[in-house]
Amino acid sequence: MSDLPSRVHITEEGPREGFQFEKGEIPTARKIELIDALSTTGIGQIQVVSFVHPKAVPQMADAEAVVAGIAPREGVEFIGLWLNVRGLERAMATGKLHLEGSIALTASETFLVRNQKRTFADNLAQQREMAAAYKTAGIPITRGSVMAAFGCNFEGRIPVERVVSQVGDILAVAEEQEERITLLNLSDTMGWATPRGIREVVGAVRERYPELEMSLHLHDTRGMGIANACAGLEMGVAHFDACVGGLGGCPFAGNRAAAGNVCTEDLVFLCRDLGIETGIDLDALIEVAALAEDIVGHPLPGSVKSGGALTSWYA
Amino acid sequence: MSDLPSRVHITEEGPREGFQFEKGEIPTARKIELIDALSTTGIGQIQVVSFVHPKAVPQMADAEAVVAGIAPREGVEFIGLWLNVRGLERAMATGKLHLEGSIALTASETFLVRNQKRTFADNLAQQREMAAAYKTAGIPITRGSVMAAFGCNFEGRIPVERVVSQVGDILAVAEEQEERITLLNLSDTMGWATPRGIREVVGAVRERYPELEMSLHLHDTRGMGIANACAGLEMGVAHFDACVGGLGGCPFAGNRAAAGNVCTEDLVFLCRDLGIETGIDLDALIEVAALAEDIVGHPLPGSVKSGGALTSWYA
Repeated sequence: MSDLPSRVHITEEGPREGFQFEKGEIPTARKIELIDALSTTGIGQIQVVSFVHPKAVPQMADAEAVVAGIAPREGVEFIGLWLNVRGLERAMATGKLHLEGSIALTASETFLVRNQKRTFADNLAQQREMAAAYKTAGIPITRGSVMAAFGCNFEGRIPVERVVSQVGDILAVAEEQEERITLLNLSDTMGWATPRGIREVVGAVRERYPELEMSLHLHDTRGMGIANACAGLEMGVAHFDACVGGLGGCPFAGNRAAAGNVCTEDLVFLCRDLGIETGIDLDALIEVAALAEDIVGHPLPGSVKSGGALTSWYA
Repeated sequence: MSDLPSRVHITEEGPREGFQFEKGEIPTARKIELIDALSTTGIGQIQVVSFVHPKAVPQMADAEAVVAGIAPREGVEFIGLWLNVRGLERAMATGKLHLEGSIALTASETFLVRNQKRTFADNLAQQREMAAAYKTAGIPITRGSVMAAFGCNFEGRIPVERVVSQVGDILAVAEEQEERITLLNLSDTMGWATPRGIREVVGAVRERYPELEMSLHLHDTRGMGIANACAGLEMGVAHFDACVGGLGGCPFAGNRAAAGNVCTEDLVFLCRDLGIETGIDLDALIEVAALAEDIVGHPLPGSVKSGGALTSWYA
């Protein structure tokens, strides 16, 4: 327990990764309603949309309209996701998003080919292009990401050395532009992580690159989400992606799609119990989880919203 | 991780605690069908019924008929639950159950009064009566249990010293009969446990009574179930109660009823990943989880049954 961080930073991804997975069309106004509600809970960063081709992800076709409708709020960064220069240009054009350059590799070549039609080499080249585009645009390159870092539905277990090696590649791509990655995200894209896997991969990356802050993107496909977050916290991880209500998933993961992302309010409950500050009002967040359920029109998997936050006992 | 057990013993409680919570009546034959299916998976112990008054728990009114219908299977112990001498006599009369004497105290007096209309003093006296009845019947007194050990919907946090003190009382009641408790169950009756709470309570009991083996009875009310089990495993706990599919709950816990018990197949998945033997065939167990869903007629909360067990990757 000695490595527990005193403060955890949560990036809320429900509006982007959560809605992306939903089958029914969600009206733009309701997306904005959820984002505005989230921004009142104390969450410091919200990923609101992705700028991808509407044919690939129809739920994100209204990305610009969503961003235009969001009420700015002091202390809240609104961020977006993009996979190419065209997407980056769309994000920049909104004029309302917090922009950071991110270099993203994927640890499973099979998944990469299926999902983005790129080999490892293609992807590295494309990330170099992205790095050059960030530099040109004056956007600092501060973030790295390894997708499928804990396992892959097509390749099975991912060798830890491959993840560590890709982290090295990510740092090198930034250095070529005289930029420096400070936060590295390890993504359990297909829901394979376990507490053992978290310790193994986070441990190996930290041993090789002790100066990097780490972030975890977790799914709850096999019920391990909160246990994985707990293992990450115990390794000192202080940044997590999460989705309110447990929204989300990865629709590109084959017939065993990754189920919901780790649930924001369940993660906040865990942090509060461990004495870790998140800056988030848990009871307000639970109300937003109810709103998210209303918007998607079906129950969401998070537990604290129905089990109760026990806030009066923690006061 | 150094205290991880090499082997974990799971007591399946779906047929008793799981069905007890269900609103619709479940036909006796279907209860037997589930128990028979469970007994083929490698689970070593199944709690099949409780012998309580049918007015209190109508779902258990057919307890004798259920036990009569179960197919005996080598290597599987069928156990029952009772709260008084009348219940014990009913269990003994079946002639088919594995009988062990258990001394059970409850760490919240408010819950005890509401649930069983007994004060701490009443309960201790009644447990002494039970101990005498076990002795008379020639049933060894080997198990202890502290209910509500991690928190209470009516009293809030339970002082750790109270739990340790009740463990002392439990051991003393057995010693008065010249019997010895070897396995102590800590029950998170109302779903309050967190990884921190597990470490705190298990740690305090182990420090005071290092010779006792410990068992955990966990609920997933706030999404902490598997993380709590993981914390227990890391403390060396080698006995767990669990319910297939995540069946179950505690209907006596007030308006915030404890949600499903920790899910057996999710727990087996975790153990397998940690290299811990359970003796259970995970794929067979997942089929039984589907049967359990069919029997109760609604989806159950367990995750591995839908996320997939990844067995071929673990081979």
